[in-house]
Amino acid sequence: MINVGVLGATGAVGQRFVQLLADHPFFELSVLTASGRSAGKSYKDAVNWRLDVPLPDSISEIVVSETNVKALKNVDLVFSALPADLASNIETECAKAGLGVCTNASAHRMDEEIPLVVPEINPDHLGLIDLQHDAGWDGFIVTNPNCSTIMLTMSLVPLRNFTFTDLKVATMQAISGAGFEGVAGMSIFDNVIPYIGGEEEKMEKETKKIMGSFDGNTIIKAPFSVSASCNRVPVIDGHTMSVWLDIKESVEKVTEAFRTWKPPIRDLPTLPESSLDLMSQQDRPQPRLDRNKGKGMTVSVGRIRPQIRYTAMGHNTIRGAAGASVLNAELIRDREYI
Amino acid sequence: MINVGVLGATGAVGQRFVQLLADHPFFELSVLTASGRSAGKSYKDAVNWRLDVPLPDSISEIVVSETNVKALKNVDLVFSALPADLASNIETECAKAGLGVCTNASAHRMDEEIPLVVPEINPDHLGLIDLQHDAGWDGFIVTNPNCSTIMLTMSLVPLRNFTFTDLKVATMQAISGAGFEGVAGMSIFDNVIPYIGGEEEKMEKETKKIMGSFDGNTIIKAPFSVSASCNRVPVIDGHTMSVWLDIKESVEKVTEAFRTWKPPIRDLPTLPESSLDLMSQQDRPQPRLDRNKGKGMTVSVGRIRPQIRYTAMGHNTIRGAAGASVLNAELIRDREYI
Amino acid sequence: MINVGVLGATGAVGQRFVQLLADHPFFELSVLTASGRSAGKSYKDAVNWRLDVPLPDSISEIVVSETNVKALKNVDLVFSALPADLASNIETECAKAGLGVCTNASAHRMDEEIPLVVPEINPDHLGLIDLQHDAGWDGFIVTNPNCSTIMLTMSLVPLRNFTFTDLKVATMQAISGAGFEGVAGMSIFDNVIPYIGGEEEKMEKETKKIMGSFDGNTIIKAPFSVSASCNRVPVIDGHTMSVWLDIKESVEKVTEAFRTWKPPIRDLPTLPESSLDLMSQQDRPQPRLDRNKGKGMTVSVGRIRPQIRYTAMGHNTIRGAAGASVLNAELIRDREYI
Amino acid sequence: MINVGVLGATGAVGQRFVQLLADHPFFELSVLTASGRSAGKSYKDAVNWRLDVPLPDSISEIVVSETNVKALKNVDLVFSALPADLASNIETECAKAGLGVCTNASAHRMDEEIPLVVPEINPDHLGLIDLQHDAGWDGFIVTNPNCSTIMLTMSLVPLRNFTFTDLKVATMQAISGAGFEGVAGMSIFDNVIPYIGGEEEKMEKETKKIMGSFDGNTIIKAPFSVSASCNRVPVIDGHTMSVWLDIKESVEKVTEAFRTWKPPIRDLPTLPESSLDLMSQQDRPQPRLDRNKGKGMTVSVGRIRPQIRYTAMGHNTIRGAAGASVLNAELIRDREYI
Repeated sequence: MINVGVLGATGAVGQRFVQLLADHPFFELSVLTASGRSAGKSYKDAVNWRLDVPLPDSISEIVVSETNVKALKNVDLVFSALPADLASNIETECAKAGLGVCTNASAHRMDEEIPLVVPEINPDHLGLIDLQHDAGWDGFIVTNPNCSTIMLTMSLVPLRNFTFTDLKVATMQAISGAGFEGVAGMSIFDNVIPYIGGEEEKMEKETKKIMGSFDGNTIIKAPFSVSASCNRVPVIDGHTMSVWLDIKESVEKVTEAFRTWKPPIRDLPTLPESSLDLMSQQDRPQPRLDRNKGKGMTVSVGRIRPQIRYTAMGHNTIRGAAGASVLNAELIRDREYI
Repeated sequence: MINVGVLGATGAVGQRFVQLLADHPFFELSVLTASGRSAGKSYKDAVNWRLDVPLPDSISEIVVSETNVKALKNVDLVFSALPADLASNIETECAKAGLGVCTNASAHRMDEEIPLVVPEINPDHLGLIDLQHDAGWDGFIVTNPNCSTIMLTMSLVPLRNFTFTDLKVATMQAISGAGFEGVAGMSIFDNVIPYIGGEEEKMEKETKKIMGSFDGNTIIKAPFSVSASCNRVPVIDGHTMSVWLDIKESVEKVTEAFRTWKPPIRDLPTLPESSLDLMSQQDRPQPRLDRNKGKGMTVSVGRIRPQIRYTAMGHNTIRGAAGASVLNAELIRDREYI
Repeated sequence: MINVGVLGATGAVGQRFVQLLADHPFFELSVLTASGRSAGKSYKDAVNWRLDVPLPDSISEIVVSETNVKALKNVDLVFSALPADLASNIETECAKAGLGVCTNASAHRMDEEIPLVVPEINPDHLGLIDLQHDAGWDGFIVTNPNCSTIMLTMSLVPLRNFTFTDLKVATMQAISGAGFEGVAGMSIFDNVIPYIGGEEEKMEKETKKIMGSFDGNTIIKAPFSVSASCNRVPVIDGHTMSVWLDIKESVEKVTEAFRTWKPPIRDLPTLPESSLDLMSQQDRPQPRLDRNKGKGMTVSVGRIRPQIRYTAMGHNTIRGAAGASVLNAELIRDREYI
Repeated sequence: MINVGVLGATGAVGQRFVQLLADHPFFELSVLTASGRSAGKSYKDAVNWRLDVPLPDSISEIVVSETNVKALKNVDLVFSALPADLASNIETECAKAGLGVCTNASAHRMDEEIPLVVPEINPDHLGLIDLQHDAGWDGFIVTNPNCSTIMLTMSLVPLRNFTFTDLKVATMQAISGAGFEGVAGMSIFDNVIPYIGGEEEKMEKETKKIMGSFDGNTIIKAPFSVSASCNRVPVIDGHTMSVWLDIKESVEKVTEAFRTWKPPIRDLPTLPESSLDLMSQQDRPQPRLDRNKGKGMTVSVGRIRPQIRYTAMGHNTIRGAAGASVLNAELIRDREYI
């Protein structure tokens, strides 16, 4: 068992990490950090647990530490659910101090020597860890994409062998993506908010890095343009998106590509039976009905139509956040970087 | 005063017609029709009034008639809120019988000799009425577009002088668009439904007819392609959409076009002070905050960004349905077709 | 293994039965019935599966039968999710034909010789089965209460030894209680509907039967009055209620009664670890956070205050419907009535 | 015209004040105050306008002042939408400085010499203003009740002549009652929160003061008990409540009392045509359909049933807050206290 910690364990993504790591076959969750206000309290007293699964008993008595490197001396790997501004320094310090860092924070996603990984898409990008070691870090940082970007790129991977240069995507994103307090009820009830700060830029940049190729030294960005329009809708969990790709092939060929795609990695505990579920009903996927498939790790795709147009949907705080980091960690262990 | 009737007066759009016509300066609402079940009852007893404005007193005692031409002998103009299948024959019969028909039903929208009109966009298409008379009808049929198409085309009209060939639009449509009973609570709560039957096809065809040119004989369809992805979201009223247009000009020029556009028609009672409201806040328009602008007749536009991308939004049962028909009728009277 | 069937297997409660029976340790689900329209189709083709757990593979290929006694010849026990009007005759026919019937339908709940059972409250009422046999039925009918009544009575059982004569309850009920199509989105969005047909009467009558005593011959109704005000609120699953009881004892004693209560039955597969969860946080229970406790079978109670006042909440389609029937069947088997 | 100001003009209730005072026949809105952060900006720049009616042009250019007495030297009357902790001192200072204060804040509601007024219920309580003058204040403070209390007491006033000693009320309150940022979307979506801090105590105390009698010196509290259970539900505007009163008279007599009641005051600009609307439909009142009646000032009542039980509902930020204060001010002017 590898001893692990969670940085920022009391927030929306932090609670998902706790849920996913509570009975993990490889990882023993032993350190939870939060702000100074929570430090010294048992986790069950420090957290306002807001998931609809119970707080795991095995975790509830862990005493919360303040977020810093000292708190992590007995762990080998940390998962970070910190806000980007806090994450930047502490994650680097952890990596220098010999820790593996699997982070959901955006701070280092676009850094040149830091891989932005979705195991089913670009496991080879983990090779950048060697460059991090060469640069003098004993540990490493591996990032996972923004929640919307994950759903989008997962839907792109079976289409990799088709030619396309122009991708347009309109998202309809759940309110949990902004954290427990991020969106006021009065703002989003009976409403659509056609703006999410920084989200469109993240989708546009991150997609091209993930879909890019690694030549052993650097990531060569994928050569298509991405244009995103991001909207917040009154949904608790599950990001839905309408996607257009200028693929010239027929709907049948595209459908066939989805149907026959298999992930290029072997079995991992958090890898769902189907990473991509191609749905045939004309009104699916839908977030409320499909977000919990594969324990929240399956991305659902449907409505493939000419142009090429389709709909993709996945659980934003599991597949799109905490589950993405945990799956990365499982891949990292499998590849013996830890 | 012109005596008018409403066909299908008890449904969601029918109630909006009643609201808009109750104190109209030109039109005297005297006939309300519904199914046989309601015929013979006073309107207040026949209707399950579901708007948040009170049922107008002046209308509540009108005795409802069964929907047929005989019921309409004392009116000169009818507004139709019938379902498409019922609308088809009865609207034609009315036109043959000398009545003007302003209809929100989709049945005749794409018929060659029937204009599909948005007063601010293509008032000249009313010239098709002459062809209807030539074909032997004493009356006429004028249609207004599907609710989503209206918001989209209203946002296109200031951009007419720019060149574009490719339009993509992802809609986030309100549940009132399906009528009072159209979408079950269990289906749409905490959910997005990425499919609305027939909607994408309507947006694609109707947009090209409305934006087309009339050469005195026929409508020449606009020469761009339209690709729509239509989604239902948990919003009561107000259709929001993310639009992409391959205009090469700058955001500034496009913004300027929106800012300086004026409708090519003179004042009419239902014409709002601003038919288009260009909003500068980065998170607007939003349906809950902006749908009631101009008594529900203003279409709001915002977030103009490179590519060109923007957001458009309007009230689907007022500007997108009943208000559209009433505004058409006011234009028709102004042009002395009635 | 006991062969069982589900009557009305395609509706909201029917789907919950299928979910709960798919891998049951005692019951082998082998017959699914529905209306003639569905008969002859595989269950996966007949049903519009709307739960957020996947349709169990083991069930998906069962061929649906039309609802009648002939279809049930190879089963010993049926679960009924039929509407009350359909349930009345068919359930009686089944009981006469030697089948055990565990029904969620309201048709027979108040019949004198038919027990209305919540295992944790009145398991002894099953004694009425003997009277049914005496009356010539080879099988039997056992009913469970209305969804709101179950939450209410579960919260009353620890308080049985206190004296009270006056119970008032205001419910805030989820939309799933009306079935998948029961409440239109336009009716309940951003709204409260202060009326649910028949619900208040059911709560008032059923509560007194369940809390009554069985003297070997008949149920003597509990001697307190029940006054209910039932409201529908925009919640998917989970009925919440504010309760008042004129108990003279202190909040501390009432709290102690909740804390120390244990169900008078031994372990059963569907019996949750805690049938009643007494919550100490001042703002709990809440439907979204607490409805899934105990796989939907735990009723949560909180906010015990002077007067005595408290809040109770439980999952209406699991604890309040399908799960209630399944738990009854497990108790019936345990008591060797089957 | 009387010059007036609004304290705390940028919040949820402050915006409602601005809406209601923009074109008032007696009051000229000339001063708007807010925190130091907003001071010096024009109102349109300082406010994040969140109502679905446009910001009135006549107000948008008023320069916002910091909240203190100096800012108010040219006004005779102020409306306070301050939080209770800020309101306490500044309101007293204003009254000492000769200003009339009509406040929605809770700070002074239960003070002995300060009237808690609903014009239709206890206009004579304004007599306490004389005692304030006797105590040396040149101005005065008049408060209006908490939003839930107003709906409740409005529903009680026609029943004054019946005997009752025990009142129970379960509320289902809208999220706007907590201000624009008061309730996170993640907290209230698909949920009921059975707790609102301080609300039950306010309803219990304020109701007895408002319904009490004024003997020229002091308010003698009404001699019945009030027991409230307050719940937050996913509704934007409109507080609904289930009420029980131990009135022995028949439903018919109670209904008759509602039907024949008339407010004991003469016409005022904000007084609606009906202060109380007794609805006969079995499923009304409903917040979404009935909250805007009488421009938000009508309280709707329905479902009168034995016990006596009924449902009451009204718009919480208009009738229950800003509109209540404005109506009080109109009454004060009518009674020549200003």
